Amino acid sequence: MIDFKLLSQSGTARAGVFGTVHGKIETPVFMPVGTQATVKAVSPEELKAGGAQIILGNTYHLYLRPGCDIIGRFAGLHRFMNWDRPILTDSGGFQVFSLARLRKLTEEGYAFQSHIDGSRHMLSPEKSIEVQICLNSDIIMCLDQCLAHPATHEQAEAALALTTRWAQRCKAFWQERTDRQNSLFGIVQGGMFADLRARSAEAIAAIGFPGYAIGGLSVGEPKALMMDMAARTLPLLPDDRPRYVMGVGTPEDLVELVDLGADMFDCVMPTRNARNGQLFTERGTVNICNARFREDEGPVDAACDCYTCRHYSLAYLRHLYTAREILAYRLNTIHNLHYYLNLVNGMRAAILAGTFDRFKKAFYSKRNE
Amino acid sequence: MIDFKLLSQSGTARAGVFGTVHGKIETPVFMPVGTQATVKAVSPEELKAGGAQIILGNTYHLYLRPGCDIIGRFAGLHRFMNWDRPILTDSGGFQVFSLARLRKLTEEGYAFQSHIDGSRHMLSPEKSIEVQICLNSDIIMCLDQCLAHPATHEQAEAALALTTRWAQRCKAFWQERTDRQNSLFGIVQGGMFADLRARSAEAIAAIGFPGYAIGGLSVGEPKALMMDMAARTLPLLPDDRPRYVMGVGTPEDLVELVDLGADMFDCVMPTRNARNGQLFTERGTVNICNARFREDEGPVDAACDCYTCRHYSLAYLRHLYTAREILAYRLNTIHNLHYYLNLVNGMRAAILAGTFDRFKKAFYSKRNE
Repeated sequence: MIDFKLLSQSGTARAGVFGTVHGKIETPVFMPVGTQATVKAVSPEELKAGGAQIILGNTYHLYLRPGCDIIGRFAGLHRFMNWDRPILTDSGGFQVFSLARLRKLTEEGYAFQSHIDGSRHMLSPEKSIEVQICLNSDIIMCLDQCLAHPATHEQAEAALALTTRWAQRCKAFWQERTDRQNSLFGIVQGGMFADLRARSAEAIAAIGFPGYAIGGLSVGEPKALMMDMAARTLPLLPDDRPRYVMGVGTPEDLVELVDLGADMFDCVMPTRNARNGQLFTERGTVNICNARFREDEGPVDAACDCYTCRHYSLAYLRHLYTAREILAYRLNTIHNLHYYLNLVNGMRAAILAGTFDRFKKAFYSKRNE
Repeated sequence: MIDFKLLSQSGTARAGVFGTVHGKIETPVFMPVGTQATVKAVSPEELKAGGAQIILGNTYHLYLRPGCDIIGRFAGLHRFMNWDRPILTDSGGFQVFSLARLRKLTEEGYAFQSHIDGSRHMLSPEKSIEVQICLNSDIIMCLDQCLAHPATHEQAEAALALTTRWAQRCKAFWQERTDRQNSLFGIVQGGMFADLRARSAEAIAAIGFPGYAIGGLSVGEPKALMMDMAARTLPLLPDDRPRYVMGVGTPEDLVELVDLGADMFDCVMPTRNARNGQLFTERGTVNICNARFREDEGPVDAACDCYTCRHYSLAYLRHLYTAREILAYRLNTIHNLHYYLNLVNGMRAAILAGTFDRFKKAFYSKRNE
């Protein structure tokens, strides 16, 4: 599917559209993270009301619990979780690396123990694709080797070489096992080394995928270094395919990366920060626990038209959060997702109107007021 | 307001209707409990979709947090929590008795320390009514003296005498401070002694209130004793006013108490049990953790038309609950509240149709299948 159409460019910022079995996706696009077959604290209807076009599922989590035998009975994740729009799943590699007890990394794949029950598993490129096919993901990600930061040039070089060999295996397995209606994305690695990023981009593009992602960013490196790596890598990716920057980032990151030509993003920040009482607004983030909101009858953001801002005051949200009421997490999450989705929509509209520069200036000037 | 109209009787079971500033209430009615200005895990829209006509707020909790100064700025609880239908609040006495550190009980009232921060407070009959007026409750409850079970006849007699004197003070304060658009209910006490229940009912009815409640049941006594007390007390309450059995109960309790002529109920059971993974169905309760639901593609109850049953499987609900996802508590709560509200609606329809006996038989036969 995919068939990416570039509709407009404003400098290097791009607005486009592509197709999936579960509907089209207008880019740039932000994907809320639904780790365990639910975007934490919100319903599918609330995601749609907020404008979510596509969500991300975590293969590692879903493989361990509830498992492919169960999700397979529902012919995939969509019916299981009551979400009929597109789904992208990651490969599981990052969670094996960050959550599981990694026992051994070999040419074959990751041998690991579950963080839930200690059970032993092997995540190979083929296994990752097989699980993602079972989840019936619209966009399947190649298994890549993640690196801790900082890594040496030698470590990063070895990881990118393995990632490239795994990408070939992923593509071969995907071609053999599917009708290619569900798309497979290649992932560029290379650590924090510009020469390796370039070599990885070239190698992954040479294999050829319906879309491309940049992995291994936002792993603890300084912000300027992350942006430098993205700025050097994005132009090396084929411009007729969607470009996805994985696991990033803050609102500022999204604005900068869209400006650099990125099309797709996912990040736990809006949902996780909501559960920690941090709310995003045009003028920066606010902490709902702050005593100055105690009697505030106004909404989080008077300019916001999300469900939370239309119906609830800062004083009420502060009360719910202080009292640890379940509704607090939901109302905060609805607001933060709306902020992110609205921000990306605003960028898209500005690119289409040829006014992205003005949009970006206004974005920063509001935050610095 | 109130102006209770008895529409139909089926034996001693009653169907009626009465008015409040925020709309009419059709009885029998079940009131979901919204302790801290939210019915745990659900939104006002979900309560309405489930058919909730009125909810209960807890004066003790709301007085301590967020406090009357804040809720007063919103002219009461309705706007603060985005609920425009009727609200009943309890007096706060039961929570002082069960949650707070009770320092002293005198003729004046309860001297207690907050369970949140240890701060010292005095809950007198006048203070309770004042707080409930500030909350702008549609139905205000008199402050009563709660008793631990078991209590001696002497203790119960003293408590009922104090409850009667407090009821007079509550009524005087309510008459002085309000235009009586918000109604005040008297509460019958008397422990587990039929003679004291009768004496209390007579004394409270003699004072005269827009509605009457039976308090001090379901406090740890055997079920048969609770039902015996209710059966003896309900006929002694004026039959031209709504009769409210406080803090009760199981589905069976509701069916039995409606049969005995009760009109109003509140209980945390549907909401609390939902958060503990217990789901109500016509055929009894199920524990969502049960391994037999692991692969079950069917809904909790095929006959149920709640949001949860229309969109989600047992396997998905079990997965969410096992993974401790926030959505689990919400979907379970939506189902359980729907079960309770639907049960009471079904009883009302049967009373109006003159078929309550048949309804009751069918209720038990399904549960014993």
